[in-house]
Amino acid sequence: MTDFARLSLNSATTKKWTLAEAVEGCVRAGIPAIGPWRDRVAEAGLDKAAKLIKDAGLRVSSLCRGGFLTAADAEGQAAALADNRAAILEAVTLDTRELFLVVGGLAPGEKDIVAARRRVADRLADLVPFASENGIRLVLEPLHPMYAADRALVSTLGQALDLAAPFDARDVGVAVDTFHVWWDPQLKEQIERAGREYRIASYQVCDFNLPIAADVLLSRGMMGDGVIDFATIGTWVRDAGYTGDIEVEIFNQEIWDTDGNVVLGTMKERYAELVLPFA
Amino acid sequence: MTDFARLSLNSATTKKWTLAEAVEGCVRAGIPAIGPWRDRVAEAGLDKAAKLIKDAGLRVSSLCRGGFLTAADAEGQAAALADNRAAILEAVTLDTRELFLVVGGLAPGEKDIVAARRRVADRLADLVPFASENGIRLVLEPLHPMYAADRALVSTLGQALDLAAPFDARDVGVAVDTFHVWWDPQLKEQIERAGREYRIASYQVCDFNLPIAADVLLSRGMMGDGVIDFATIGTWVRDAGYTGDIEVEIFNQEIWDTDGNVVLGTMKERYAELVLPFA
Repeated sequence: MTDFARLSLNSATTKKWTLAEAVEGCVRAGIPAIGPWRDRVAEAGLDKAAKLIKDAGLRVSSLCRGGFLTAADAEGQAAALADNRAAILEAVTLDTRELFLVVGGLAPGEKDIVAARRRVADRLADLVPFASENGIRLVLEPLHPMYAADRALVSTLGQALDLAAPFDARDVGVAVDTFHVWWDPQLKEQIERAGREYRIASYQVCDFNLPIAADVLLSRGMMGDGVIDFATIGTWVRDAGYTGDIEVEIFNQEIWDTDGNVVLGTMKERYAELVLPFA
Repeated sequence: MTDFARLSLNSATTKKWTLAEAVEGCVRAGIPAIGPWRDRVAEAGLDKAAKLIKDAGLRVSSLCRGGFLTAADAEGQAAALADNRAAILEAVTLDTRELFLVVGGLAPGEKDIVAARRRVADRLADLVPFASENGIRLVLEPLHPMYAADRALVSTLGQALDLAAPFDARDVGVAVDTFHVWWDPQLKEQIERAGREYRIASYQVCDFNLPIAADVLLSRGMMGDGVIDFATIGTWVRDAGYTGDIEVEIFNQEIWDTDGNVVLGTMKERYAELVLPFA
């Protein structure tokens, strides 16, 4: 019998489902963990969300997401810190250790990427003590370079590890999301490094579909539908010592238009065929 | 008076112009160099193309492009080598030293990016002796990672330099194209390295426009219209010792729909304002 013990549904994959529906869907499908987005949690109400996940017997693999740390003005920076502190407390209530950070892009009109990256490092240093006190790990997620300007100036795993380096590995980790990093010529060595440094906080799987969708945010695909070699990347992640949850996070209009139960069925099949043998 | 001595028009920027029209346009605008694409050269006829550029007193900054070296089968590999040898001879006739290579993506149905990259290295080794005998430098162009699967498995300057490393710097160089590399967290150090290793064969400028165009090939923009910091990157390229031509290569439907003479005028203005002060 296939072992789905490490499989987790990121709630963005079944975008039309409320959190309660996603939890019920996971239970029905025998998926033991969920990675909720904050908007779905807020919609359900934080305490109620925590209770319904717990009562269903699911694990929370991560919370998506804090970040957007690149504001250049004091007001924007204070707002970002307040929002991230709120996210840290939400992660505590939801009983997960891992809070994803999408670090943000250039400030409006800004072109100085070097300065913007420095602000990410500064805000991270501001946040780490509060996260640490609350037992939450801030998970730096490198995003594909096509999102560098407007979503995340952290584009490679090596860069995320460099940003994480000043901090304890229990406080700042990194995510390996196949969609974002599959192309990276340094991927093998940086996954090895992430393992050595005990920083792999999440392994997220989905495919990179071609052609790239007109809305470039929606080019993520079901495993097997795109160009990614899950056997190779999965082996690197396993050999780096990662034994945690494997989250499936897909933004894709066609998948969003499909019945959630069907999506979970396909997801289990593809996980069993393409991901699990190398996990 | 503004010094346009290093400015070159890549013929793709004025896509609707024939090579003869582009040459005339450059002469009218006082642009001293041109980087033709091979299809425009073929259309004019190779010898005629060489003569019309020479008679107009223009320099050929580079020839675009050879490459597509990732075929997995013997027949495809032989065809790729034959095409690249032809391109080398075309570069000789056109009196340029620099032949751009866009290395190609995964073979049809292939997912093993590691193996595909190895084939790029193998085909490069096959080609270098012929290029060297003919006095042509093969210019590895890292392309933005969004093109990794289908156009170029070489995605960073560092990776291009690693690929070039086994060969003499007179035989294999690298291109710095702002559109493709602006996001790279290692850009400064890799431009410095490229300079130290005498491998910078071309500096191409254009902007990275947002939102990304629905056809992702057409997101290149006129300098100043997007997110790129030409001052910083230009300074790094200058400090690395590059003194060659600066080519403007833009794939952009709106620019293609604009009268070529107007485009050249805008290009000169933006070059003078954003690029030249740091060149």
